[in-house]
Amino acid sequence: MEQDVIKIGIVGGTGYTGVELLRLLAAHSQASLQVITSRADAGTPVSQMFPSLRGHVDLPFTHPDESHLEQCDLVFFATPNGIAMQQARTLLDAGVKVIDLSADFRLQDIAAWEKWYGMTHACPDLVGEAVYGLPEVNRAQIKSARLVANPGCYPTAVQLGFIPLLEAGVIDTSGLIADAKSGVSGAGRKAEIATLFAEASDNFKAYGVNGHRHLPEIRQGLARVTGKALGLTFVPHLTPMIRGIHATLYGRLTRETDLQALFEQRYAEEPFVDVMPAGSHPETRSVRGANCCRIAVHRPQGGDTVVVLSVIDNLVKGAAGQAVQNMNIMFGLPETTALNNMPLLP
Amino acid sequence: MEQDVIKIGIVGGTGYTGVELLRLLAAHSQASLQVITSRADAGTPVSQMFPSLRGHVDLPFTHPDESHLEQCDLVFFATPNGIAMQQARTLLDAGVKVIDLSADFRLQDIAAWEKWYGMTHACPDLVGEAVYGLPEVNRAQIKSARLVANPGCYPTAVQLGFIPLLEAGVIDTSGLIADAKSGVSGAGRKAEIATLFAEASDNFKAYGVNGHRHLPEIRQGLARVTGKALGLTFVPHLTPMIRGIHATLYGRLTRETDLQALFEQRYAEEPFVDVMPAGSHPETRSVRGANCCRIAVHRPQGGDTVVVLSVIDNLVKGAAGQAVQNMNIMFGLPETTALNNMPLLP
Amino acid sequence: MEQDVIKIGIVGGTGYTGVELLRLLAAHSQASLQVITSRADAGTPVSQMFPSLRGHVDLPFTHPDESHLEQCDLVFFATPNGIAMQQARTLLDAGVKVIDLSADFRLQDIAAWEKWYGMTHACPDLVGEAVYGLPEVNRAQIKSARLVANPGCYPTAVQLGFIPLLEAGVIDTSGLIADAKSGVSGAGRKAEIATLFAEASDNFKAYGVNGHRHLPEIRQGLARVTGKALGLTFVPHLTPMIRGIHATLYGRLTRETDLQALFEQRYAEEPFVDVMPAGSHPETRSVRGANCCRIAVHRPQGGDTVVVLSVIDNLVKGAAGQAVQNMNIMFGLPETTALNNMPLLP
Amino acid sequence: MEQDVIKIGIVGGTGYTGVELLRLLAAHSQASLQVITSRADAGTPVSQMFPSLRGHVDLPFTHPDESHLEQCDLVFFATPNGIAMQQARTLLDAGVKVIDLSADFRLQDIAAWEKWYGMTHACPDLVGEAVYGLPEVNRAQIKSARLVANPGCYPTAVQLGFIPLLEAGVIDTSGLIADAKSGVSGAGRKAEIATLFAEASDNFKAYGVNGHRHLPEIRQGLARVTGKALGLTFVPHLTPMIRGIHATLYGRLTRETDLQALFEQRYAEEPFVDVMPAGSHPETRSVRGANCCRIAVHRPQGGDTVVVLSVIDNLVKGAAGQAVQNMNIMFGLPETTALNNMPLLP
Repeated sequence: MEQDVIKIGIVGGTGYTGVELLRLLAAHSQASLQVITSRADAGTPVSQMFPSLRGHVDLPFTHPDESHLEQCDLVFFATPNGIAMQQARTLLDAGVKVIDLSADFRLQDIAAWEKWYGMTHACPDLVGEAVYGLPEVNRAQIKSARLVANPGCYPTAVQLGFIPLLEAGVIDTSGLIADAKSGVSGAGRKAEIATLFAEASDNFKAYGVNGHRHLPEIRQGLARVTGKALGLTFVPHLTPMIRGIHATLYGRLTRETDLQALFEQRYAEEPFVDVMPAGSHPETRSVRGANCCRIAVHRPQGGDTVVVLSVIDNLVKGAAGQAVQNMNIMFGLPETTALNNMPLLP
Repeated sequence: MEQDVIKIGIVGGTGYTGVELLRLLAAHSQASLQVITSRADAGTPVSQMFPSLRGHVDLPFTHPDESHLEQCDLVFFATPNGIAMQQARTLLDAGVKVIDLSADFRLQDIAAWEKWYGMTHACPDLVGEAVYGLPEVNRAQIKSARLVANPGCYPTAVQLGFIPLLEAGVIDTSGLIADAKSGVSGAGRKAEIATLFAEASDNFKAYGVNGHRHLPEIRQGLARVTGKALGLTFVPHLTPMIRGIHATLYGRLTRETDLQALFEQRYAEEPFVDVMPAGSHPETRSVRGANCCRIAVHRPQGGDTVVVLSVIDNLVKGAAGQAVQNMNIMFGLPETTALNNMPLLP
Repeated sequence: MEQDVIKIGIVGGTGYTGVELLRLLAAHSQASLQVITSRADAGTPVSQMFPSLRGHVDLPFTHPDESHLEQCDLVFFATPNGIAMQQARTLLDAGVKVIDLSADFRLQDIAAWEKWYGMTHACPDLVGEAVYGLPEVNRAQIKSARLVANPGCYPTAVQLGFIPLLEAGVIDTSGLIADAKSGVSGAGRKAEIATLFAEASDNFKAYGVNGHRHLPEIRQGLARVTGKALGLTFVPHLTPMIRGIHATLYGRLTRETDLQALFEQRYAEEPFVDVMPAGSHPETRSVRGANCCRIAVHRPQGGDTVVVLSVIDNLVKGAAGQAVQNMNIMFGLPETTALNNMPLLP
Repeated sequence: MEQDVIKIGIVGGTGYTGVELLRLLAAHSQASLQVITSRADAGTPVSQMFPSLRGHVDLPFTHPDESHLEQCDLVFFATPNGIAMQQARTLLDAGVKVIDLSADFRLQDIAAWEKWYGMTHACPDLVGEAVYGLPEVNRAQIKSARLVANPGCYPTAVQLGFIPLLEAGVIDTSGLIADAKSGVSGAGRKAEIATLFAEASDNFKAYGVNGHRHLPEIRQGLARVTGKALGLTFVPHLTPMIRGIHATLYGRLTRETDLQALFEQRYAEEPFVDVMPAGSHPETRSVRGANCCRIAVHRPQGGDTVVVLSVIDNLVKGAAGQAVQNMNIMFGLPETTALNNMPLLP
């Protein structure tokens, strides 16, 4: 029996994760985009704001009050933090599944969430139900989830890089270092001086050294693997490119192991994690536009420090692509549906 | 009856048009990539040179001498100028169709070709048979062609912008101006100082003002429309972006006409030319990675100068995408097969 | 007798022309920066907002109400349009000279100004007194001016390129074309989506084809040379680079002339206009950070179309550098004082 | 008594460090550029290759055989590795001082040098005499040196960041990590595919994880401070910007200390090291074009990991600027002569 087409709603489609969701879903054979909401741009055709979608997406933005999201099978939230937590319950009660691309359901520790995000959580009881949508770790739970918290971009790249080492118990967990570099689209489609072309081009800087919201998310994810808290230093940097995250990860080996084999075996069955040959240096452009994490593992000069290089496209495997991957899992579709496009290089 | 799968060979696959052909053909349901040649890199897996193709293209590069191209149905030449003209006859004689992405068969005037390209032409008699592969002009001839000369990138953008005006006879043909801007990938994947990142980034310059090889090609194409020689000034510029051509075209109106309607009607049936709404300013990124030419037509302050803005991705509609479009036409496939992917934005 | 040090005030120093003025004036041996105002950032050290000035500029921003600008010898306005016209009279009455980097005093036609800038002009009578600060044309008047209207960036590049041709009367003035490309800093240091890195990088587009505020300014300047109105089409484009304007200018020759000699002679005595050797293609980076306009003149294929290539740094010769050049002239200093730094390349 | 003007020769002036030396020396009041050599470009005016120098540098390139370098007071080598070691002795014997911007004299361990650079050293005995030209460490020795080994770009940024911590003995030296990011000009002005704009733009990657030539240089410099070998992992990355190095340094604290005070005191008298206020994130553009290292020190979440952020312009404090600083010291000039220009921002 053929799968019915899935009726899709998107809340907040005017940001970069929104337009990327549209690009992926418009080519998805089993998805039917019903409605995309925007309070500010209601009535505007989506393809007027994003001419790249001309001929592919015919919908206009709809005012949230007229969006009838409860008639969808699945709603994606591509909204700023703090929106999804206000609307999720109504949708779930109406039998709609929800994938939240924002951070509202990512942290199980409500107090930590409220501290890092500076808001009171609107529905803490749903947090416990939410499944953290990293398929390489939680595929089974995602399959039966009603509510998926789609991971952050940095956390995706960092966790996929550290997990094989932590699962195998071969590194000291007290002094992990994640030095991560992101393209500017990670800051979103918001009018801000710091991310203007004339500010961010031909420039490189760290930011948030004393605390970034993705730190507790990464710690939570890694601690689930090890079963105990870890010492992790996370330093994000802003890089003059549009898309891409490059995480350079450092840990100290506690016992000998074949690192290349470890990584290859861990991800042998994963369609979207590519362990590159020994000695490789993955480039962010090698995943541009694709739902792929490429990883290389090094042990410089044969010393006791392991270096993992992990790259993703922050808008795809770090956001919209992973969301579609989660959708495919939740609805029993082949996991690679609509996610098999090749990266754009150069 | 179902179409047999087309056996494809590519000569010269290590440049940007080569890797772009691979990206498009790997997703083409009716194409089967048999062989890709490279003298220098024979034996190297394609995906080692271009990791973006890992998991999608399994072939290694093959030495030309062992490539058995005559067993293909179609061979693409993604070579420097001067190669295809030496190999085309043998292939055609063996019943293989040929699409040449280089310039060897673009100019009907052999003397002009030899002057601009600085070589003696190896097979001038085949030039007369070659069909200039601009489907929006020559679709019928392409359908039955054995040998297609795939247009240059600048000529594609410039011709598609001028053609409606010239066909309608509404502009003075003695003083046309084409001010064109190209991304750096247009210079190819060659080790040269002028196109190093540290030279070409954060910089803008004109080049070839006193003569560029695409000038005679554009003149030939436009003269076919008007039936007589034109006065055209063509100034190309190097722009610090990877992909994209933006042609800004100027002409003086000789009689009143509804320019917007003229363009919309001319391209109403064209799947890969998008006439944008009046007042638009197409951006190169709106076609990034897609086989699309977006055009807007303006008449500033209602004066007698018409300004046409025409954008393409130089590697797609300006090269590999147009080549696949020509292949689809030559083999009776739906013209949009494998060319319906959406642009990557941002 | 030694020149007294000039006491300088800057109104509105938080934009790109403001910080560039600070960079140039901090190295000016005859200038003493007294005060720099900002309503929003009063109290903040300038070098906190612009760390590049640490150790060179010690002032904080001062609230306009406490700035005592009337005690300065010269006040620069690096403000949005509409501010200088409200404050200039008071300063002039107090004996302070004024250089306005905004557009308030650039157009002699008040009605035209009000139409293009969408405001009622606050002091139309001062407009007549204002001297248009293009030293290569108006040096004598600048010398004795109290109020200088510093030219726009596009108008500087375009006028310097066309003037030799117009003064010599060798081109048809009915169909001039100025195809101009600007770096993104030309849009100012304002929080806007269109100039975000993720929007403007790896992208190229025209804008304002149907009318840009610099069009009437260019027309006014060129008409002063010819003594009559001209036909000019001006198309600005946004280019993914920080600084730089490249104007590509087109005109039709009406009589034979030695174009190279014409340009060289016109600018022989000009310290900040560099006519490059015949056949050159000036690059924007060759003037990065310097108060210099480099020009090359071409006559493609010996036809009747002349092509002029004119490059400046929009923030220097197109704004702050030209303002300091005007200051040097107004105060009888050597014109190159503080303006002799070399471009930064690469 | 006034200092005589220093007669300067430059060997190998066609690379990025060469043109940067020219930019700085042309504005140096006590330097007189006598000769600049290039085998391939002998006879070409320097300003033809680098139009940014038009009007500032009148010399042509001279063939090495006709360069009469022995008549100079000081010769800079801005050559590929392996050249300076062949010519230094003759110059020193003639009483000429030498500053080598290449790597020939940087490593005291000849065997290590030969291994990392893949050549036999031509004058190992001079290596012992050579002074490592990092003024913040070796100012006294530089003052009396005949031969200065100008440090590498990465080693400058990394050493200046680690030195205060190592001198104070407050970090564990067994597991230092230097995650460093460089602009593409660091790869030099060489025709190579990997550093083409179309390859390096909109992309980020690590390289040389298993060993980079700057690793032994950094280790040597840091070991001099601590008096013993250290454990250091150094991972360089290629960043899509022209100039700039950002080193992110990690170490584990072994005892409590006031880190901000430690850094401020260490560099209180240094004209070219700027310790930024606590909590700062220095940007590479804040030193663009200037001989400055800006440093910030962090202790995230008050844990035991210290994070140092250190930025330089790789062509200035990382190469040509530091060379001029060394020259000023060697010739008894004020150390900041010709090095006081402000960074170019934006």
